[in-house]
Amino acid sequence: MISTDILIIGAGPTGLFTVFEAGLLKLKCHLIDALPQPGGQCTEIYPKKPIYDIPAYPEILAGDLTEKLLEQCKQFEPGFTLGERAETIEKQEDGTFIVTTNKGTKHQAPVVAIAGGLGSFEPRKPLIPNIANFEDKGVEYIIKDPEIYRDKKVVIAGGGDSALDWSIFLSDVASEVTLIHRRNEFRGHLDSVEKVQELKNLGKINLVTPAEVMGIIGNGHVEGVVVKQSGEELKEFNITCDHFVPLFGLSPKLGPIANWGLEIEKNAIKVNNALDYQTNIPGIFAIGDVNTYPGKLKLILCGFHEATLMCQAAYQIINPGKKYVLKYTTVSGVHGFDGTSKTAPKAVVKKID
Amino acid sequence: MISTDILIIGAGPTGLFTVFEAGLLKLKCHLIDALPQPGGQCTEIYPKKPIYDIPAYPEILAGDLTEKLLEQCKQFEPGFTLGERAETIEKQEDGTFIVTTNKGTKHQAPVVAIAGGLGSFEPRKPLIPNIANFEDKGVEYIIKDPEIYRDKKVVIAGGGDSALDWSIFLSDVASEVTLIHRRNEFRGHLDSVEKVQELKNLGKINLVTPAEVMGIIGNGHVEGVVVKQSGEELKEFNITCDHFVPLFGLSPKLGPIANWGLEIEKNAIKVNNALDYQTNIPGIFAIGDVNTYPGKLKLILCGFHEATLMCQAAYQIINPGKKYVLKYTTVSGVHGFDGTSKTAPKAVVKKID
Repeated sequence: MISTDILIIGAGPTGLFTVFEAGLLKLKCHLIDALPQPGGQCTEIYPKKPIYDIPAYPEILAGDLTEKLLEQCKQFEPGFTLGERAETIEKQEDGTFIVTTNKGTKHQAPVVAIAGGLGSFEPRKPLIPNIANFEDKGVEYIIKDPEIYRDKKVVIAGGGDSALDWSIFLSDVASEVTLIHRRNEFRGHLDSVEKVQELKNLGKINLVTPAEVMGIIGNGHVEGVVVKQSGEELKEFNITCDHFVPLFGLSPKLGPIANWGLEIEKNAIKVNNALDYQTNIPGIFAIGDVNTYPGKLKLILCGFHEATLMCQAAYQIINPGKKYVLKYTTVSGVHGFDGTSKTAPKAVVKKID
Repeated sequence: MISTDILIIGAGPTGLFTVFEAGLLKLKCHLIDALPQPGGQCTEIYPKKPIYDIPAYPEILAGDLTEKLLEQCKQFEPGFTLGERAETIEKQEDGTFIVTTNKGTKHQAPVVAIAGGLGSFEPRKPLIPNIANFEDKGVEYIIKDPEIYRDKKVVIAGGGDSALDWSIFLSDVASEVTLIHRRNEFRGHLDSVEKVQELKNLGKINLVTPAEVMGIIGNGHVEGVVVKQSGEELKEFNITCDHFVPLFGLSPKLGPIANWGLEIEKNAIKVNNALDYQTNIPGIFAIGDVNTYPGKLKLILCGFHEATLMCQAAYQIINPGKKYVLKYTTVSGVHGFDGTSKTAPKAVVKKID
């Protein structure tokens, strides 16, 4: 059982900034995220896209934003349960909550902050009749650990940045990489498309287009895929492989959180914005894109504000009756749980003679 | 008469970010500030102090924060009325407001956003009986334009960073700089104290401590000051000068805004935080440190959020009945009023063969 002060569901920008604000109040945080790394969609979907509306950043890449937020909160030593989806929540008699993931990991905390963004990102799955039988047996929709492909034969399907970038990456790891796409044209960053062209010319990536995977061959584990290639004449053939990785994008789903008894409106969790972004269940808050209230804007900067106010309310729940007086970091500095401190240089009092 | 869409009172961080968010909605802004430059207290009081709680900036100097915000909003071409204090407001029959400064400059806008921070910074004045007679006649409490001191004799009083830094700066501009402080010890950045010591040793700054200015001599304009110096024996003498600049710090006062008919609570303006940070007077909003509502935190990042939501409400007032659909800068880019555009590099659709 993992115990913490604030259990944060979702490790996107809002969840990460919550760690910092909670840390200023000496509250510890643990984050759960279905994705294999922190950053939410900023890291998973558009790490190289510039964002222009983060205050005081005329331009910042989404991936760099995540890096900065991780750096800002690291002295408060957040815990992470990554690659697991928060599945169920139970309120205990002592008032704390227990949240269990789809892999059975249990977390306990007096305060739960849902910073789930648009929901947990679920892969779009191709319509291949027997694909469900091979999930986690050679079929992966998200690449969590590229090392499992070392010296293996991998078939990747897809025509976007994910398919392109992972084909490039795995061409150095796997013994054989085949990229299958239903069109001849790929849609992605120019440099990614050009790099795949170059690796194809070098014989390091096999390209099969326009083509689709129609079936999976194997006995308990993937042994190959059935491919139908159109073009001048229709061909159907098998490709031997150890892994089949369809990368057709992710679509956000509120998921199991929808069954937690929270008031939901238009796929978002209703909160009391007039005070602290608490939901209809005391002790459970919703912040960032996952919540809704009159005038709500789904902007990262609004998540930062909501996280900050929410932490004050969490402090009251965890330290009932104790009054917290806001201290400015400019005056008091930032004192990490890891023993580090950042403080402004103090003025000297010095004689001039 | 200066006309604009949103008239912002206060050019601190919240006011500057309002320009950016309003610009995204194609609304123009004009800012009024009593200080001679934008940035509010970040620039005037602590430009070299690091701030640790701006999201995604593990550390940023207050002065640099102002620079970044100015850069972020510059394509939306804000207008500035600086060194003037918003004094009166009148509602016109057409629903717009006219705001007049202490120097008589008139501004007209359908929406007024008060982003006045802790108030306008008023200088702390020394208790010298006849000082009021010499204000703007050789006595200045804030240095707005250092050029007025060129080749003049200047007496500066004070023992903090302002007094130290301006003594250093004016030692190259004025014909004579005298620094008077009631103690021998100065309180400020180490490098400033050391620099004054060095300039004193070079004879470029006259230092008179421990001493106080007791009176001002002059006929219509400052011609000198009466100084009482303690130490081993008490001395009283005159120093001939053209300017006397007491730099004893600034203290914030809500000022004339307190008389605008707004609901005030504990020196802050009450707003409807559940929606759009509007005050009790429709069309007048209060954002950032100047407002109050249940759970209010006086943090810069909260001002950013409040500014953003307020701009949506301003859009509705200025474009009644028109529905605005939030566009993400990552998708739509930022299109400045100056003709510049920033947009994310588009994905290419390209054949690989």
